[in-house]
Amino acid sequence: MSQELKSKRVSESKTVMTEMVMPNDTNPMGNLMGGNLLRWMDIASSICAGKHCEAHVVTASVDHVSFQKPIRVGDVVTLEASVTRAFRTSVEIFVEVFANDIKGGNARRCNHAYYTFVGMSDEGHPIPVPPVLSLTEIEQQRYDSAPRRREVRLILSGRMKPEEANEIKAYFFDR
Amino acid sequence: MSQELKSKRVSESKTVMTEMVMPNDTNPMGNLMGGNLLRWMDIASSICAGKHCEAHVVTASVDHVSFQKPIRVGDVVTLEASVTRAFRTSVEIFVEVFANDIKGGNARRCNHAYYTFVGMSDEGHPIPVPPVLSLTEIEQQRYDSAPRRREVRLILSGRMKPEEANEIKAYFFDR
Amino acid sequence: MSQELKSKRVSESKTVMTEMVMPNDTNPMGNLMGGNLLRWMDIASSICAGKHCEAHVVTASVDHVSFQKPIRVGDVVTLEASVTRAFRTSVEIFVEVFANDIKGGNARRCNHAYYTFVGMSDEGHPIPVPPVLSLTEIEQQRYDSAPRRREVRLILSGRMKPEEANEIKAYFFDR
Amino acid sequence: MSQELKSKRVSESKTVMTEMVMPNDTNPMGNLMGGNLLRWMDIASSICAGKHCEAHVVTASVDHVSFQKPIRVGDVVTLEASVTRAFRTSVEIFVEVFANDIKGGNARRCNHAYYTFVGMSDEGHPIPVPPVLSLTEIEQQRYDSAPRRREVRLILSGRMKPEEANEIKAYFFDR
Amino acid sequence: MSQELKSKRVSESKTVMTEMVMPNDTNPMGNLMGGNLLRWMDIASSICAGKHCEAHVVTASVDHVSFQKPIRVGDVVTLEASVTRAFRTSVEIFVEVFANDIKGGNARRCNHAYYTFVGMSDEGHPIPVPPVLSLTEIEQQRYDSAPRRREVRLILSGRMKPEEANEIKAYFFDR
Amino acid sequence: MSQELKSKRVSESKTVMTEMVMPNDTNPMGNLMGGNLLRWMDIASSICAGKHCEAHVVTASVDHVSFQKPIRVGDVVTLEASVTRAFRTSVEIFVEVFANDIKGGNARRCNHAYYTFVGMSDEGHPIPVPPVLSLTEIEQQRYDSAPRRREVRLILSGRMKPEEANEIKAYFFDR
Repeated sequence: MSQELKSKRVSESKTVMTEMVMPNDTNPMGNLMGGNLLRWMDIASSICAGKHCEAHVVTASVDHVSFQKPIRVGDVVTLEASVTRAFRTSVEIFVEVFANDIKGGNARRCNHAYYTFVGMSDEGHPIPVPPVLSLTEIEQQRYDSAPRRREVRLILSGRMKPEEANEIKAYFFDR
Repeated sequence: MSQELKSKRVSESKTVMTEMVMPNDTNPMGNLMGGNLLRWMDIASSICAGKHCEAHVVTASVDHVSFQKPIRVGDVVTLEASVTRAFRTSVEIFVEVFANDIKGGNARRCNHAYYTFVGMSDEGHPIPVPPVLSLTEIEQQRYDSAPRRREVRLILSGRMKPEEANEIKAYFFDR
Repeated sequence: MSQELKSKRVSESKTVMTEMVMPNDTNPMGNLMGGNLLRWMDIASSICAGKHCEAHVVTASVDHVSFQKPIRVGDVVTLEASVTRAFRTSVEIFVEVFANDIKGGNARRCNHAYYTFVGMSDEGHPIPVPPVLSLTEIEQQRYDSAPRRREVRLILSGRMKPEEANEIKAYFFDR
Repeated sequence: MSQELKSKRVSESKTVMTEMVMPNDTNPMGNLMGGNLLRWMDIASSICAGKHCEAHVVTASVDHVSFQKPIRVGDVVTLEASVTRAFRTSVEIFVEVFANDIKGGNARRCNHAYYTFVGMSDEGHPIPVPPVLSLTEIEQQRYDSAPRRREVRLILSGRMKPEEANEIKAYFFDR
Repeated sequence: MSQELKSKRVSESKTVMTEMVMPNDTNPMGNLMGGNLLRWMDIASSICAGKHCEAHVVTASVDHVSFQKPIRVGDVVTLEASVTRAFRTSVEIFVEVFANDIKGGNARRCNHAYYTFVGMSDEGHPIPVPPVLSLTEIEQQRYDSAPRRREVRLILSGRMKPEEANEIKAYFFDR
Repeated sequence: MSQELKSKRVSESKTVMTEMVMPNDTNPMGNLMGGNLLRWMDIASSICAGKHCEAHVVTASVDHVSFQKPIRVGDVVTLEASVTRAFRTSVEIFVEVFANDIKGGNARRCNHAYYTFVGMSDEGHPIPVPPVLSLTEIEQQRYDSAPRRREVRLILSGRMKPEEANEIKAYFFDR
């Protein structure tokens, strides 16, 4: 049972990844291709999830991601991944992307995403994962809003009917 | 103006991409990492978008993607990308993922996603893109439901207020 | 025995592969290096051969390939591979290469090649492969000319004496 | 004119390349994929051709290549490329492939091929290339047989009629 | 002049990089190859140096590196790079390597190295770099010992005679 | 015991490796990144060490490396690795780096390094390695100076006290 596992702090599994944007990562206009960023976000998030779960993990989903600011060849991309909340056999990871040019200038926040991962036994079966202990205010906010994001996922993957989505109804109308 | 551009059929830009899953594409359990699949989906979709728009394109967003069936090292992955609908300077691409083992067996549909791309001039400015002419029933369905998905994106990226999302309200309650 | 295996249609194993030409695929003049194209042709062909044979396959040979039209960085390359004929434990695959620029323009047929593959058991021994059922006129032409190409291969790899090459003699003189 | 360029010895441009076979270079059975070997052969040959021509070069063709002995993951592959003969704006390169296991054992000759390259000016136009000075007996043999191989290429690429191929007729019948 | 540039704190350019060890990064025994680790250390260090110098940088040298503890395929490698001291146009970077298995266990310090980089103008000429402001005790230790390491480098690259190496003499005999 | 193994000549394991500098190997200024060169030097050296030891090898250390002359994208890099001396379970490899442009011009010696490797049994334990038989004058020089370099390594990795380093004392003062 997940409840029996000892809670772990968000900071214990926080993962920072840095990448240089190389020519092969870019489109012919010299911008980092969205798919390469999605791949880096998945790797940073999965390392974070593995640390939190102390287990192998597989990507279960990624929520909507939008790409606002172009990242250029030669830029340095920093990804910061933190666990937000654990469900029975899965964890939600928040990953944030920052970029700056090779000289450290033009630092900017580029985008973010929520990935979910399922903890796996060595035999490849889902296993319970430790609860998340959120301490800071922003950690608590992401913890509290996680069930709403989970409902969206369940609807979008056809495992929940829209009319059962109580959290989402509140998100759209009760505020 | 987008209206002045000649409509193009979905079939004119349909793109099929095939990849073999190599060891470096997989996690230590031998499964294709989600981020690599997201990257391939982005490439297939962007080629499709480039053909439809007859222009450079940049990824604007990817909608929620879930990963149900594991894909193994040595498997063959086939990605099929089709344009669903064009908005003023952007197109929505539907990409579907199939896999089979190296011997052609265990063929299965793995997942799908909607990517959006913005058409770009050679100078890097958004440009109008041709409308989509949908002919088959499934093409028409995806065409009709595109505005609803667009509203979700606008809300999720903070460019539309939830209470203004008329298509989504209908999706959740008017059926 | 090969004869006992059920014939399979060419269309059942047809394989389409799409690649974007990235900077690392090109020489300092910005043209796709011939060796990278040969590698992609081998992958597309081997996937096609694996599907037809329903088995692991290993490359046995590639016939003469010439490179006429340069392919540029940023171009999109489409490879189409079809089985032409099966011999006892091997298949011949015809692979054709097309390219267009990133905007879908300048579409052109670049070149083609014949690869042969041997079907392999899981233990690594050659195994009989299914016969090919050719239906269209062009499929039938490639089927009929396959034995002639096979003689050239046997001579070039030193397994047949030139004077025994009846198909080739006809090719050069009986027309 | 090619004749005015100073002849260069075969040894001046001989190129040796060594590669370790990594997991991503192999098929699911752990054997080096034929296409990867073709790519390495192209690189070694093009470096050799560039040295001889003292110019940029582009791959014009590769003759029939057969793959006899499997090369395994972890093996070390050595490629040796030498110029055989120059024509007006092109050179023929002979490339030979050797392999041994990681401990230096099981040394074996795997296969060979003939690649042709065209010398290019910086503006991308074919340019005359220096003649080849062959000194050793094996260098002379390859020099003498080059016109025959060239005829085969011209026929196979549709630039010569079979009945005009005097060298080939002799190869098949005058011995 | 370097003196005129404003000093920067070590923490301002500290760089953390995380990598998963993939199959292609390892030797046939499944251990990360030393050269791949040297490459990652160089990238992390150069990003750190670029941030400190606010300029392009090129690697000038790496000091002796030894590899004690094997790192396995699937392990997660974390690299932490900090500037230690600036000389006129160069900086010394200390990079430390940690590893843990995919489940976050077996955390260990693997090794470390000192890299030096030269700050470069956009035209490719060496430029003065900002001094380093060291605050913590360990930062101060690395700052104080930097001139000794610099003497070793000057001797090893033939730019200083051993008998002029006052810092080194002290290191070996005055303690 | 190492003494019982048959001595092997330097020439028996000499390894030549050639690489083309591709865009992804370079920094935004178009120069080969130092870390990539360190990686190639490690691969060339480890192949050489494996051949000499007739065993798996793991990198134990690399001595100080400095990078003098920039190597440009499109350049051809040639690495030559030779064993210098064997100790009980380890070998020292000397690797030298040369470069020329794609047309064979601007040939230059770039840098060199000493790598050490430990011979490993298939079970991953250090094993005795064959002694080195040095024949030429330069081979003998490198053989004779190897113990001094070994002392430096032992000191730098904390396994020897500076005051015990008799070879180094001589290097600095007895000449």
